[in-house]
Amino acid sequence: MANFDLMRELHVKNDGKIVLLIMDGLGGLASAPDGKTELEAAETPHLDRLAREGTLGQVVPIARGITPGSGPAHLALFGYDPLFYDVGRGVMEGSGIGMHIGEGDVAARANFCTLDDQGNITDRRAGRIPTEEAIPVVEKLKQIKLPGVKIDVQLVREYRFAVVMRGPDLDPDIEDTDPQKTGVPPRKVTAQSPGAEHTARLFQQWVEAACEALKDEPKANGITLRGFSTDPKLPKFPEIYGLNPACIAVYPMYRGVSKLVGMEILKFEQESPEAEFTVARQHWDDYDFFFIHIKKVDSRGEDGDFDAKAEVIASVDRALPALLELEPAVIAVTGDHSTPSQLRSHSWHPVPFLLWAPGTVRIDAQKVFGETACAQGGLGTLPTTDIMPLLLAHAKRLRKYGA
Amino acid sequence: MANFDLMRELHVKNDGKIVLLIMDGLGGLASAPDGKTELEAAETPHLDRLAREGTLGQVVPIARGITPGSGPAHLALFGYDPLFYDVGRGVMEGSGIGMHIGEGDVAARANFCTLDDQGNITDRRAGRIPTEEAIPVVEKLKQIKLPGVKIDVQLVREYRFAVVMRGPDLDPDIEDTDPQKTGVPPRKVTAQSPGAEHTARLFQQWVEAACEALKDEPKANGITLRGFSTDPKLPKFPEIYGLNPACIAVYPMYRGVSKLVGMEILKFEQESPEAEFTVARQHWDDYDFFFIHIKKVDSRGEDGDFDAKAEVIASVDRALPALLELEPAVIAVTGDHSTPSQLRSHSWHPVPFLLWAPGTVRIDAQKVFGETACAQGGLGTLPTTDIMPLLLAHAKRLRKYGA
Repeated sequence: MANFDLMRELHVKNDGKIVLLIMDGLGGLASAPDGKTELEAAETPHLDRLAREGTLGQVVPIARGITPGSGPAHLALFGYDPLFYDVGRGVMEGSGIGMHIGEGDVAARANFCTLDDQGNITDRRAGRIPTEEAIPVVEKLKQIKLPGVKIDVQLVREYRFAVVMRGPDLDPDIEDTDPQKTGVPPRKVTAQSPGAEHTARLFQQWVEAACEALKDEPKANGITLRGFSTDPKLPKFPEIYGLNPACIAVYPMYRGVSKLVGMEILKFEQESPEAEFTVARQHWDDYDFFFIHIKKVDSRGEDGDFDAKAEVIASVDRALPALLELEPAVIAVTGDHSTPSQLRSHSWHPVPFLLWAPGTVRIDAQKVFGETACAQGGLGTLPTTDIMPLLLAHAKRLRKYGA
Repeated sequence: MANFDLMRELHVKNDGKIVLLIMDGLGGLASAPDGKTELEAAETPHLDRLAREGTLGQVVPIARGITPGSGPAHLALFGYDPLFYDVGRGVMEGSGIGMHIGEGDVAARANFCTLDDQGNITDRRAGRIPTEEAIPVVEKLKQIKLPGVKIDVQLVREYRFAVVMRGPDLDPDIEDTDPQKTGVPPRKVTAQSPGAEHTARLFQQWVEAACEALKDEPKANGITLRGFSTDPKLPKFPEIYGLNPACIAVYPMYRGVSKLVGMEILKFEQESPEAEFTVARQHWDDYDFFFIHIKKVDSRGEDGDFDAKAEVIASVDRALPALLELEPAVIAVTGDHSTPSQLRSHSWHPVPFLLWAPGTVRIDAQKVFGETACAQGGLGTLPTTDIMPLLLAHAKRLRKYGA
């Protein structure tokens, strides 16, 4: 991973702005020899220009062969070895919707599900209940009190919400209760070590009270919990890198992990590359590092829709001039992981990486932004966790090491 | 090395078969710019087809600049860092011919040598005594008894055999007795630490008794011992990777290391690529991982015979359709190390690596299987120990890491 001690020792500040533009699930596959991937098929004249003027490579998010979840993949992008920094989904999701998870608090990611008369799950996502229908259901849950602890419940969207418990002697070492299949009941809340038994009992009492409160709900009459976790106390961007960073992302998970590393979460409503680049412009003078996250590339890959994934990439390219007009010192364009539309899921394949930094980048021989060009790019194949040091260096924000 | 904890956590099972086809000593050298290596000179239409449909890279067995022995090189292929897992040659060789080396037993690899009247070595391999002549000599050695220990002696082939000692308080921390040159006597068996002095004395007594028993032998009248070692207790393939693996190899050393990692050793007689692929077909339904080892590529490299090495590679290619007919999910073709015929020995050069996996591999721009193409392949340059996670991933046998 990024050597944080070295970063702390060597970083300096200047006026150059760094943009880390993440197209979620960017990497793809061609379906035949000499075929094209989604990125290669997309119309991307501006990204190709950056490729000609910059350098390419391919990044490995966790380790070769390992398919990353979004949380670990983003930790790697920010320079944190995800095999060392274990951040639970509860904290990422809760933090992403603005909940405070302090030292000793325990957060869990929760799903509404549908239970039949016998208490068995018939739908693990409660029929994907719309957000507006879920809001009053969550209000009922907010009324539940337990002795000795404070409980905070917040809707994320649709069937997804987060629960944070605050009080003495809490411990997040608790198993997921989602059985990952239908036809069986949710699992009982169970501690994975003796120190967490008290906490597990409290969450089980809360689930039972919640099910009682929801018993007349047509869809959302059950709950599963996962990702029990507490404040991971990650070292923060300003202290490690000397950066004042901002996050421009729509989805809570990405906002959550950004907040955990010390980013300011910029608020905006509309989800589009133009809207996100506009937010960057509005706050351009206030920050020196912009993490901009485009989700829909991954979504269309998970749909298995090659053309739609390519079109989202092309839409980012069309909006790119607005970002370039701001004259950042460094732009990196990559993904957190690959999501080939052929596989309809995250995958282990390396992710195309583009680095553009006028005046400081070593220009390589590659002329377009795509997987094939990136595999032959000037940066070679490198761990995702090496991206942050490269961005700082190309922004002239790292001093020489040693005399 | 392969992160075994991660492999244990993430592996799943399915019906896809994985083939790891090893051409021992595959990597070679060209003798001039624009010249060809043995692999590049060989007629390999089927391997070139796999290269077009798959992806290439080059693997580093131990570390850059390090020339591997066969044992460490195979440990690396199987995902075990050979600098961490120290498996002695005695155990590998003994295990390979079916000897049991349990906890506390000490095994040594032994060579017959020829001694002159003064006891100095005149031939370190006893004139490469034929196997049929060596059999009765080994029978004499089996008669030797020592108080307090049981001794097992088995011929490997020609001048090579293995000795296993079983009893209380044995310790394998003993120096090799082969002086690696002629004109001097074999070294005395010497402990490298105080705890092994008892064991060293026992082996020295055994060597003296053996030389007495062999004193009238014309060629095999002396013995050298090396690779003193005990059961390394390696974690096994089924437990780490969730694989039920089979080994198809002719030579004892390769069978030995395969057995130590939990492979079933398939029995067969004839040594040829066709015969080895036939064994794979006969057992295709019984295993999900097939390690197939082709020795002669290395042998011809050590002979310094460029054309003969290329011809062995071509013979593997000619036999390949029989393997492809079995429709494995993943095939990797590589070597344990390089053996350039120009050097007549193992070398430190990276080894060409080919990965073929219909539907899951990212096809790169390379069209033929050779060192030059591999150096520009889509996988880049990677440690040999990363091969196993890549094979599992491409067979869809690894779950996502983190949410």
